Amino acid sequence: MSTSSTTQATDFEFSFHLPTLIEFGFGKASHLGERLLQLGVNKVFLVSDRGVETAGLLDNMTESMQEAKIHYDFYLEVEPDPGLETIDKGAEIFKANAYDCIVAVGGGSAIDTAKGIRVVASKGGSIGDYAGVDKIDKALSIPLVAIPTTSGTGSEVTIFGVYSDWDKNVKVTVTSQHMAPTIAFVDPALTMKLPPKMTAASGIDALAHGIETYFSLRSRPASASLAIEAIATVSSHLIRAVHNSEDEEARIGMSHGSLLAGMAFNNGFLGLTHAIGSALSGHCHVPHGVAIGLLLPHVVEFNAVTRPDKAAKIAELLGVNESQEDQLARQAAFAVAKLVKDIGLPTQLREVNVPETKLTDIARDSFKSGMMKFNPRQPSEAEVLELLKRVY
Amino acid sequence: MSTSSTTQATDFEFSFHLPTLIEFGFGKASHLGERLLQLGVNKVFLVSDRGVETAGLLDNMTESMQEAKIHYDFYLEVEPDPGLETIDKGAEIFKANAYDCIVAVGGGSAIDTAKGIRVVASKGGSIGDYAGVDKIDKALSIPLVAIPTTSGTGSEVTIFGVYSDWDKNVKVTVTSQHMAPTIAFVDPALTMKLPPKMTAASGIDALAHGIETYFSLRSRPASASLAIEAIATVSSHLIRAVHNSEDEEARIGMSHGSLLAGMAFNNGFLGLTHAIGSALSGHCHVPHGVAIGLLLPHVVEFNAVTRPDKAAKIAELLGVNESQEDQLARQAAFAVAKLVKDIGLPTQLREVNVPETKLTDIARDSFKSGMMKFNPRQPSEAEVLELLKRVY
Repeated sequence: MSTSSTTQATDFEFSFHLPTLIEFGFGKASHLGERLLQLGVNKVFLVSDRGVETAGLLDNMTESMQEAKIHYDFYLEVEPDPGLETIDKGAEIFKANAYDCIVAVGGGSAIDTAKGIRVVASKGGSIGDYAGVDKIDKALSIPLVAIPTTSGTGSEVTIFGVYSDWDKNVKVTVTSQHMAPTIAFVDPALTMKLPPKMTAASGIDALAHGIETYFSLRSRPASASLAIEAIATVSSHLIRAVHNSEDEEARIGMSHGSLLAGMAFNNGFLGLTHAIGSALSGHCHVPHGVAIGLLLPHVVEFNAVTRPDKAAKIAELLGVNESQEDQLARQAAFAVAKLVKDIGLPTQLREVNVPETKLTDIARDSFKSGMMKFNPRQPSEAEVLELLKRVY
Repeated sequence: MSTSSTTQATDFEFSFHLPTLIEFGFGKASHLGERLLQLGVNKVFLVSDRGVETAGLLDNMTESMQEAKIHYDFYLEVEPDPGLETIDKGAEIFKANAYDCIVAVGGGSAIDTAKGIRVVASKGGSIGDYAGVDKIDKALSIPLVAIPTTSGTGSEVTIFGVYSDWDKNVKVTVTSQHMAPTIAFVDPALTMKLPPKMTAASGIDALAHGIETYFSLRSRPASASLAIEAIATVSSHLIRAVHNSEDEEARIGMSHGSLLAGMAFNNGFLGLTHAIGSALSGHCHVPHGVAIGLLLPHVVEFNAVTRPDKAAKIAELLGVNESQEDQLARQAAFAVAKLVKDIGLPTQLREVNVPETKLTDIARDSFKSGMMKFNPRQPSEAEVLELLKRVY
């Protein structure tokens, strides 16, 4: 009953919000047209990227919209780490053409772009004006349907959007309940062609969402139980999905696990892995999932000192067979490291060309992340630097 | 990893929706005024009942609204099993006075009454016009804040409302995502004065929500993990809350467990206990929680035949110490029966004056419930009758 152990005193407080309607099923994307008709939609602004279009992932969806006689246009300008201008430009096109719905198809970047366009098209200004927490004052009437083609970000159910301010070279985060998509339309069939490297990088991000939420100081039974389910589901399907793209069951498990992790971290928040990961990606353009894979085993080891009970549970969920809690806790970091290795992600910073001279800056900037405060063990800057040196 | 075992094939489908923002904390009710200010509310229609008012439970809330200079009026007509007229009359008063928010304070009846008033005040007609599934075509703009004073129904987060059509002597259920309250403002301090009998009856209902959702054919990892958490939390606090009203930790556990159960059954639905329970209450006016307590151990026994794995997990969550799964499964029904007895609820139908001659009608009418189809083992009418005779 370890997950209920926080229910103890009158200071037990929490909030939980998951406004997005989740609809999950293999092959669902072919029914997009019918679903949009139910929403009363006529003219769709479809936000995606050229890679998704070239892979043919949009074909079933556009066919079903044609059958349903729904007009649609593409906005395929989405780039990785979408810039503020991409959002503002999309919103201008949306308004100029009086669309009545946004459909986002892609990874976290496409979905975050669509979230941003919806805000600016509804409320004006630039997406940068809404940076911070709760800067959107009321519900947005434009429906947003999010259709993930990767299994990792959880963006289809979260209240967050992350954008790049290329002028200032910083990340801008918009956090608001009104950022959550109206519907998360999750079809694991769309992930079948995801290459092994991207399956690995996005999958380890999903695992990290589960692990970091479970460790988080804001973790409560509702978010923790979803996080536990996410860790179990991701860890039991990730290796199969990486090694055999066509393994339907593994793909379903990954889409499902990533979704559960999104449901969890939307309410329990993240921690040290994401705090350092963000600084690492900012300084050295290491892709997000790769950065997370590099750091996660070391953060689990760092946090196990403060929360051996949770580390032990994580080891157990990762399939470590050991009855002693202290032994289990000690093996959590090894189990995560082994998984990272088994799915072929780099395990040392030097492999991804991070210059050793940058480590001090990365350690310092990891404290700029809003996620640092939720980590169960508060590190000093020196401790973060030491951790980075160990990963080097 | 038993809760993940359903993730297997391409027919794995589910939806999940929990539109209500949950805010949970001991003593929270004294901050209602501030919270309503944040919502931009000026004139509140407060739906409750005379029992809640007499117990003084509204005092902190009305004081905080006065401090926030929010105008409020009471509607205290709520009766147990609220009738259609109560809803329609409330909606008329709401419209005549141009309120801009509904606050419901009470048990399931008060919250269901408020849900119904909100629908009729927004869309016209009578609440009976919305009976069935998805008969409300769009989101309602009137905010509804639900503040439970019992710990059992979960109505603060569910999409259901149950009303009595006294002319036809039937229950009318309205099911729609737009029935969900805007905010569930959960303050366990409000349950401190709940008498033992009501704590027991509402608490066993919460446990049944967890158990029935876990057994449900619509149970999926997200709803099942919340159900498991609910079963663990309710079963470890219920006896204490019944035997010592003032046990704050037990009260927090019950409010929390009941909320988790509501989050779960809003998505996984219920089963045979509620199907028979509804027929039993309809025919013989047995209070809902009492009916559930009478039936639950027998339904667990009935379902254990089809799902011994789930029965075993339930026994384990109820604290049965046994390592063999088949032994655990066999003990699930005993463990539930023992809990029902320990909290002083009746264990035989004759104790609550059900005439034996009615059992045939009750068995027949239990098939009118929409919940019957989610039960993992489909009973015949003869099997339901046999079950009822055993409880007699």
